[in-house]
Amino acid sequence: MAELHEQARQDYEAFKARGLKLDLTRGKPAPAQLDLSNELLTLPGEGLYKSADGTDLRNYGGLTGLRELAEIFSEGLQVPAERLLALGNASLTLMHDTIVHALLSGVPGGTGRWTDGERVAFLCPSPGYDRHFAICERFGIEMIQVPMTGEGPDMDVVERLVADDATIKGIWCVPKYSNPTGVSYSDEVVRRLARMRTAAPDFRIFWDNAYAVHHLTDKPAEILDVLAEAEAAGNPDRVFVYGSTSKVTFAGAGVAFFGSSEANVKWMTGFLGKSTIGPDKINQLRHVQFLKDAEGLAAHMRKHAEIVRPKFDAVDRILTAQLAGTGLAEWTKPEGGYFISLDVPEGCAKRVVQLAKEAGVALTPAGATHPYGEDPADRTIRIAPTFPVPAELDVAIEGLATCVRLAGYEKQI
Amino acid sequence: MAELHEQARQDYEAFKARGLKLDLTRGKPAPAQLDLSNELLTLPGEGLYKSADGTDLRNYGGLTGLRELAEIFSEGLQVPAERLLALGNASLTLMHDTIVHALLSGVPGGTGRWTDGERVAFLCPSPGYDRHFAICERFGIEMIQVPMTGEGPDMDVVERLVADDATIKGIWCVPKYSNPTGVSYSDEVVRRLARMRTAAPDFRIFWDNAYAVHHLTDKPAEILDVLAEAEAAGNPDRVFVYGSTSKVTFAGAGVAFFGSSEANVKWMTGFLGKSTIGPDKINQLRHVQFLKDAEGLAAHMRKHAEIVRPKFDAVDRILTAQLAGTGLAEWTKPEGGYFISLDVPEGCAKRVVQLAKEAGVALTPAGATHPYGEDPADRTIRIAPTFPVPAELDVAIEGLATCVRLAGYEKQI
Repeated sequence: MAELHEQARQDYEAFKARGLKLDLTRGKPAPAQLDLSNELLTLPGEGLYKSADGTDLRNYGGLTGLRELAEIFSEGLQVPAERLLALGNASLTLMHDTIVHALLSGVPGGTGRWTDGERVAFLCPSPGYDRHFAICERFGIEMIQVPMTGEGPDMDVVERLVADDATIKGIWCVPKYSNPTGVSYSDEVVRRLARMRTAAPDFRIFWDNAYAVHHLTDKPAEILDVLAEAEAAGNPDRVFVYGSTSKVTFAGAGVAFFGSSEANVKWMTGFLGKSTIGPDKINQLRHVQFLKDAEGLAAHMRKHAEIVRPKFDAVDRILTAQLAGTGLAEWTKPEGGYFISLDVPEGCAKRVVQLAKEAGVALTPAGATHPYGEDPADRTIRIAPTFPVPAELDVAIEGLATCVRLAGYEKQI
Repeated sequence: MAELHEQARQDYEAFKARGLKLDLTRGKPAPAQLDLSNELLTLPGEGLYKSADGTDLRNYGGLTGLRELAEIFSEGLQVPAERLLALGNASLTLMHDTIVHALLSGVPGGTGRWTDGERVAFLCPSPGYDRHFAICERFGIEMIQVPMTGEGPDMDVVERLVADDATIKGIWCVPKYSNPTGVSYSDEVVRRLARMRTAAPDFRIFWDNAYAVHHLTDKPAEILDVLAEAEAAGNPDRVFVYGSTSKVTFAGAGVAFFGSSEANVKWMTGFLGKSTIGPDKINQLRHVQFLKDAEGLAAHMRKHAEIVRPKFDAVDRILTAQLAGTGLAEWTKPEGGYFISLDVPEGCAKRVVQLAKEAGVALTPAGATHPYGEDPADRTIRIAPTFPVPAELDVAIEGLATCVRLAGYEKQI
């Protein structure tokens, strides 16, 4: 053991001596991926500014967005186009705003404004997405951790909690290629979410289908249609669906979607009408021209996969080479999405991130995958392999593996 | 009088018989105005996606927007570029969101969340902008009417109200070429707004400078720099400034701005960071390329004026020809902005709008210029002359004048 530790120490010092500066913090597309959408830089094109129905998209109006764009994403997001709003450039904003409206006005089927209750709590399957948790923190919404399993949140825990406590108003879900584990929800999990009895009549599932079309293999994950399941179970208004083109076209200049039941869409549209006269429809037109239809979207996503898959493979290959059999780490092998989740020995994640930082590799802070930034086991590290070029990614993951060895053996000595 | 009435009735019937369908409801730019910005349809152009500092604008990030765009609008909006955020496509959204944050978190210098108070009230200079009033209504903010004078809100009334009542948290202002009267605030009004003593320590001026650069004459209106005045008066955090390119480039695909004191900007940016990773910076780049600098912006606005000014002139010419000397109407002659305000005899505005509607001319509903859609005197009609082509505008205004005569003489008979 002392020998392994000493070897890890030497490897780490050698790595550190290289004076690198690498960033694996955020799930950002690489420039090569952004290049795939460069056609957008000259669209819609001279004299082109009308929608299919002849509307001048340069002017005000069109609160719910371009129907032809909703149609392209309807299948992937599993929301009928007539209930799928195409809006601004960030689905995060739509989730944020949904909570604002719930706090200040309540939701359909509710008994009042969420902000009037003594407590509002959300279930947070963990590890999960830090920006979801940040929205809760910003509004003082209490976060309750629920363990993530290999097929979604632990539904025994979820069902027990929501059945008893009417102050639990929501749950965050990334149902496909989840952030950060890459897990896709099983049919059973989706069904139980749609059907479960909730003490709160206005309980909502925030269904952030961020990676709906972001497959890395030829066998796309398929998840159950949660809106249809909820409707069939007599809970038609339970689910808010979100999605965006942020990791389809330009991360900063895309289009975000909101879909739900008729009552929820009407509710959302009513509030939208007070805060805007309409989204940027010219940008939506660009997206329609560029993606064309659902098949065009799928073909475009295959090009992304060609760039992203080798990076996921490299992470797995290097972690396997360096850590398999050490008992120091487990990691996920996602078939889509943007992240790999790395579990190190309990109490070691912060130390690994610190060591990596000192050696010039920036990782998402340990704990970020959990509510309040606190991973109780201090175990989970989120790897975001998409942004670096392959050569830099390899070096960064080698360095990360070295940090895991050093931190792990330190602990065992 | 009976004769005048009979003549008006005959004219009205003749007008109605033409079976027109004209729309003067909203302040929308005409297609000819939108055409002025058609270069945007092919910008930023092949291979162009970097900011002045080399950032790849296609990707995530850049929460506060492109500095080079803020610099173009800094002078017009009277906000230093480093405190001017360039954000999404609608300043209305920024006003809405500011109020959300104030309700749910309070503002700098305040004693708590606005929503925790027993009452939140806003002063509404009237006639004013219906979408401001709609935001108040949406959040249950009580609206208190303040008369508009020829140089801004009646400051004697404003000062008296805010000095006594700590639940009055804000005032809506469109300080230049005001909606709908076209009035620009005098230096005295701006100074008194900046200096007045308010019972609420967290009182805010919502300074919607929507028409900051929308001049119709060669003598642009100049208003005092309200941020500087407030700072000099020891009230540095009193003012939130808003503006946009909605009536500069494409109404639906522009860029909106928020500017304020350092503390307020920090406050706003903190919340923004929870709801978005950044605005559409590619669209901001388009605007930088197209407008170039403050002089480019001014030159572009002169082209708008060439299209808009003849329409304002036509309204004045036709109203003068038909109504001058009748004692039935007064109207404003704005030197900028988007609206003309027409005052008819007390109790006649609704009737005029109804008559016009029956004759095929859609006007903004009477009362829309006042809180809760209720004009106590039933007198003010907002004319939005920009959207129709000149020939249609002439006909619509002739019809409107006829309706004013008919309603006015009806009343007097």
